[in-house]
Amino acid sequence: MTVTSATPALDELRARLADINALTMARDVLSWDQSTHMPSSGARDRGRHMSVLNRLSHELFVSERTGELLAQADEETAGLPGDHIDSQLLAVVGRDYRRYTKVPPAFLERVSLHTSRTFHEWQQARPADDFARLRPLLEQTVELSREFSSYYTGIAHPADPLIDLADEGFTVATLRPLFARLRAGLVPLVEAVVDRDDSIPSPFQQFFAPDAQLEVGLELAQRFGYDLSRGRLDLAAHPFATSFGVDDVRITTRVDPHDLTQSLFSTLHETGHALYELGVDPRLSGTSLAQGASSGVHESQSRLWENLVGRSRAYWEWAGPFLAQRFPDQLGGVSVDAMYRAVNRVKRSLIRTDADELTYNLHVIVRFELALELLEGSLAVVDLPDAWRDRYQSYLGVAPTDDRDGVLQDIHWFAGMIGGSFQGYTIGNVLSVQIFEAAERALGPLDARFAAGDFGDLERWLRTELYRYGRRLEPLDLVERVTGSAMTVEPYLAYLRRKYGELHGA
Amino acid sequence: MTVTSATPALDELRARLADINALTMARDVLSWDQSTHMPSSGARDRGRHMSVLNRLSHELFVSERTGELLAQADEETAGLPGDHIDSQLLAVVGRDYRRYTKVPPAFLERVSLHTSRTFHEWQQARPADDFARLRPLLEQTVELSREFSSYYTGIAHPADPLIDLADEGFTVATLRPLFARLRAGLVPLVEAVVDRDDSIPSPFQQFFAPDAQLEVGLELAQRFGYDLSRGRLDLAAHPFATSFGVDDVRITTRVDPHDLTQSLFSTLHETGHALYELGVDPRLSGTSLAQGASSGVHESQSRLWENLVGRSRAYWEWAGPFLAQRFPDQLGGVSVDAMYRAVNRVKRSLIRTDADELTYNLHVIVRFELALELLEGSLAVVDLPDAWRDRYQSYLGVAPTDDRDGVLQDIHWFAGMIGGSFQGYTIGNVLSVQIFEAAERALGPLDARFAAGDFGDLERWLRTELYRYGRRLEPLDLVERVTGSAMTVEPYLAYLRRKYGELHGA
Repeated sequence: MTVTSATPALDELRARLADINALTMARDVLSWDQSTHMPSSGARDRGRHMSVLNRLSHELFVSERTGELLAQADEETAGLPGDHIDSQLLAVVGRDYRRYTKVPPAFLERVSLHTSRTFHEWQQARPADDFARLRPLLEQTVELSREFSSYYTGIAHPADPLIDLADEGFTVATLRPLFARLRAGLVPLVEAVVDRDDSIPSPFQQFFAPDAQLEVGLELAQRFGYDLSRGRLDLAAHPFATSFGVDDVRITTRVDPHDLTQSLFSTLHETGHALYELGVDPRLSGTSLAQGASSGVHESQSRLWENLVGRSRAYWEWAGPFLAQRFPDQLGGVSVDAMYRAVNRVKRSLIRTDADELTYNLHVIVRFELALELLEGSLAVVDLPDAWRDRYQSYLGVAPTDDRDGVLQDIHWFAGMIGGSFQGYTIGNVLSVQIFEAAERALGPLDARFAAGDFGDLERWLRTELYRYGRRLEPLDLVERVTGSAMTVEPYLAYLRRKYGELHGA
Repeated sequence: MTVTSATPALDELRARLADINALTMARDVLSWDQSTHMPSSGARDRGRHMSVLNRLSHELFVSERTGELLAQADEETAGLPGDHIDSQLLAVVGRDYRRYTKVPPAFLERVSLHTSRTFHEWQQARPADDFARLRPLLEQTVELSREFSSYYTGIAHPADPLIDLADEGFTVATLRPLFARLRAGLVPLVEAVVDRDDSIPSPFQQFFAPDAQLEVGLELAQRFGYDLSRGRLDLAAHPFATSFGVDDVRITTRVDPHDLTQSLFSTLHETGHALYELGVDPRLSGTSLAQGASSGVHESQSRLWENLVGRSRAYWEWAGPFLAQRFPDQLGGVSVDAMYRAVNRVKRSLIRTDADELTYNLHVIVRFELALELLEGSLAVVDLPDAWRDRYQSYLGVAPTDDRDGVLQDIHWFAGMIGGSFQGYTIGNVLSVQIFEAAERALGPLDARFAAGDFGDLERWLRTELYRYGRRLEPLDLVERVTGSAMTVEPYLAYLRRKYGELHGA
């Protein structure tokens, strides 16, 4: 007996998406291995293997057959309600298909070659503090980013299609005023509390054995709900979380033997990303919907667990004694208050990834603004290093003396196009507070639970209200649904003013 | 300026092979990860991802376009000598293409489904000692193996195409008399020396800390020439070596805290496989020629390093003091002779993978003979467990009381077709001595070098004479070229008689 499917096109489309998913997951396993365990000489072949997997999955996705199947599957499912999982699958895959087929393959090939070359040069030029060497390449990157945007019609700003790739629905027009209000609130707040505790030595800046740091980090992650039958922790130079399916989501961290906070907060941050991916509805498994909704929404979860939980007074009521028990020699006599203050110091700094909770967004806003100006043509690449210094001086009160810790600092502009790679960090910070407050509206105040080491209610609420949807809902709709409002910076600023005001009596 | 290639078809074929290679390497990374680091719940998705990669690479290889390119590339390179690397590439790829396109894709799909199901059942049935549950599946496996052979014409025995897949050029007609002579030589030799040292406790059966075992194993591997910038060692339940390109060849081992020899010889064995893969000419990189020539030739190198070197008296002159220094508490007062005798005990045993050097091939020959009889129809699956017991009793003087340690012992018959999966182990043992003797003919006696911990001359000779060829030469031609003769069991038997005669005055 042959069973005839009522939705043959949808079935074939799903099978095709599962093949694409397998290629993508394989590439991600190769990438994880490259960052964690691969012997050094494996790099050359590995780059080639990953680029083949990328190309094959891209070709499979943008082929005409995918377009035909999408059209037929739309007809097959015309009677379904809009919030049916199949309708949402077709909506998301359709949007992706239209987005990726707008741009000619030959252009993408040029971007790929240019990106490889630029990344390779950056790896040499950054340690050598040699911006001049990268200048012509960066000029081409700006040109390519503009050309990318030119394939999209009806856009208001050349950065919009680039932003949309990572943070669908957001535009320069919506982000610029939000970020301006945020900056206006942050600059005086930073000024009021910066460097306050500088004279007190941090209890975390002592020797902590690397193995013990990893072990303790993993215990803290598990306390948040991270399940080692579905994940693991490894060392990596630049920590990340990565998903190989809804039942295998791994995190990495870095360890500084003389600063416990490096591994501690990297681990909590990546655990937040991982809890999101682990919480996705298993029915989305094997499709492009089995991942976070967007860059910014993903970052909201890493930041929520890292900062709203992990840097809260209530958390330290529990984590302080826990760490003192694990590290009695270093932390035995240290008060919870001293630990809490130590993990919430505000410092003027040059390096984004080392920045504290309060100054972090100013690092992002500098990059966001400069990228827009490059794309608009109001800033020339040759003037970028000085513009970077000026902007840092003006927003953060400090400026790099070289380009290594200035414009060459981050990989982003040297490993892809320019204009869509930084906004997600600040969107995430802003959303983290809106989402956390929504959780407390639903669950009541969480402080007492955190102080008892109980994070289960929060994790379950986030899973139910946010994580399980994966990419079923568009980011803006998801935010509206979870928080009851659009994205807005005021709750975030109020949270920061409250927290740092209490800390420093400001 | 456009550069026009003189060999456009060969270039396109090479690009296609590189894509297939990337898919294969990716699958192997996924498989390595599954056996070493993957969290337990990752298994389901992982199986799907690997099967997609298998299918896509197979489809790419057997497509008509590959056949067209092969034909055109043959014309393009018609003027090249037969030992040119391009001619050899086309010869090997052409053979593989004809071999894989002989069998209908629908049949392979059936085998794949049957294999998955059988493997799944075996995982339950072996611990439960439940042969009855597997009997109907195994009967189908025999049928499928026969059907596989039926797609090949002009073959003398149904096992021949199966043997040829793993050990090209070998047939039942050539192997049966060789194995019969080997068995005739081994059975009385085993009888003469078995269980001789049973009353002396082995110095290696004490507690050795697992981490220290791994560390020491890695030092021994490096001493053989294994380079950690191009490899690494991990734990796995069933040790293996795997290559992700000529610059990333990894080994795994298992550790028994109460028996140092488990990790020691697993590590040396896999190091032999790895040295072979690491020695392949980098010009073969990204093609299907960048691997060992055959199953048997590969095994000859794991066995050469494990047994001809690692179980030799000369090796223990060096390794004994080295290990005594690393494990002073356990091995401090133990003589080199006691260690050498302990790693060369001959015992009647039921488990192939635990067998000593002398009895090992009898385990293999039992399986080889029974598989041929199943395919010939002279043995029915229902009678297999008893036939197993009879054969063990007759060749090894011991027989299992259950099927768990009998016919259900190895994964091979329950994870693929029957008839081509065991001969390589014994071919490898036999060849290891022929190749080792060729090395000593070229380099002079190696004992003094081994006793000084110097293995560089041997590794270089093997690399130059054997490893670098990868699959450029057919196994039989390669053996002839390296050893100066065809495969023959007499040198191997003479080596065993000499070694075990000296050990036991037999």
